[in-house]
Amino acid sequence: MRELIAYASSFDNEKRNGGFMMNYGIAIFPSKKIQDEANALRKRYDPQYTKIPPHVTLKSAFTMDEVTRDQVIQELKKIANDTKPFTIHISKVSSFAPVTHTIYFKVEPIPELTILFDKMHSGIFPDNNEYSFVPHITLAQDLMEDEYSDVYSSLRMKEVDLNDTVDRFQLCYQLEDGSWTVYESFVFGQEVT
Amino acid sequence: MRELIAYASSFDNEKRNGGFMMNYGIAIFPSKKIQDEANALRKRYDPQYTKIPPHVTLKSAFTMDEVTRDQVIQELKKIANDTKPFTIHISKVSSFAPVTHTIYFKVEPIPELTILFDKMHSGIFPDNNEYSFVPHITLAQDLMEDEYSDVYSSLRMKEVDLNDTVDRFQLCYQLEDGSWTVYESFVFGQEVT
Repeated sequence: MRELIAYASSFDNEKRNGGFMMNYGIAIFPSKKIQDEANALRKRYDPQYTKIPPHVTLKSAFTMDEVTRDQVIQELKKIANDTKPFTIHISKVSSFAPVTHTIYFKVEPIPELTILFDKMHSGIFPDNNEYSFVPHITLAQDLMEDEYSDVYSSLRMKEVDLNDTVDRFQLCYQLEDGSWTVYESFVFGQEVT
Repeated sequence: MRELIAYASSFDNEKRNGGFMMNYGIAIFPSKKIQDEANALRKRYDPQYTKIPPHVTLKSAFTMDEVTRDQVIQELKKIANDTKPFTIHISKVSSFAPVTHTIYFKVEPIPELTILFDKMHSGIFPDNNEYSFVPHITLAQDLMEDEYSDVYSSLRMKEVDLNDTVDRFQLCYQLEDGSWTVYESFVFGQEVT
């Protein structure tokens, strides 16, 4: 979730009307198999490796107080209940170059993902996305130009064919050291609203 | 959750009748404030700092397949629904010496915590605890004798007075690199069973 943290409107911890402001994000954590595959690369090439497990960001960092958080949670429960489990497919390694040097597992942008993304950027949710939605699992970022070229030319040739069933997403919050903790999971069709 | 990983009965990834065996654990993640306090110390003194956020272990690492996991989740939902939010209190830094050199925030062992622990070590749950339950948040471990003495003699004098409301626990699974990912959160009184 790091690449978009800079867009969080006003990250601070001061106490507002509704309590402490904190940095939140929403992500899908894929199965262990895919996480292990991603981490084998992240360990070497992603400075965020220790801050959060491999994930597909649905909503990048945004700030809210506790009152808003509880409203957002009610909305996320409704979204989860309106969603059926679906399969994601990863078929290649791609890159955001020249915008950034981020290298990632490309997750096919199926409607189920786009619908989740759209719901989390409308209504009571802040519309904090700056780019169009490209579902992905980051493998490498912040590499120097030379290393980026070497790593990407090697990884882009990699044969990738991974499938995973998605039946939940997670609301996370950020600690002072930049790491993320899961606050709540939302399992499709299983939430009390 | 690391100190007890060694007791997990048989951690492997081979496919059994019920699917892949994975390593699971159950923990309470305290509020950001307490996590930040703990991480300021863990960053320097705990090699597990990057593997899992600060936590109170309710059930240390155990293995199960996917079929058992789904049964365990049903049971955890019942346990969560039978639990009311409660307050934990941290009033000092303590140590497991001479058993281990682990230094931790001592969490007062109130009945609410002990009841959760007991429920997660009986019935369908494997009874994988070897010691009696001492609720704590690890701050330092695996220190050399000299460093341990220095750190502990300094930290034991620290004035600590932290309170937190607990209204959920989380089921986590372990990746190959030893890090933990949250699989599901269980919010007290909020689960569909």
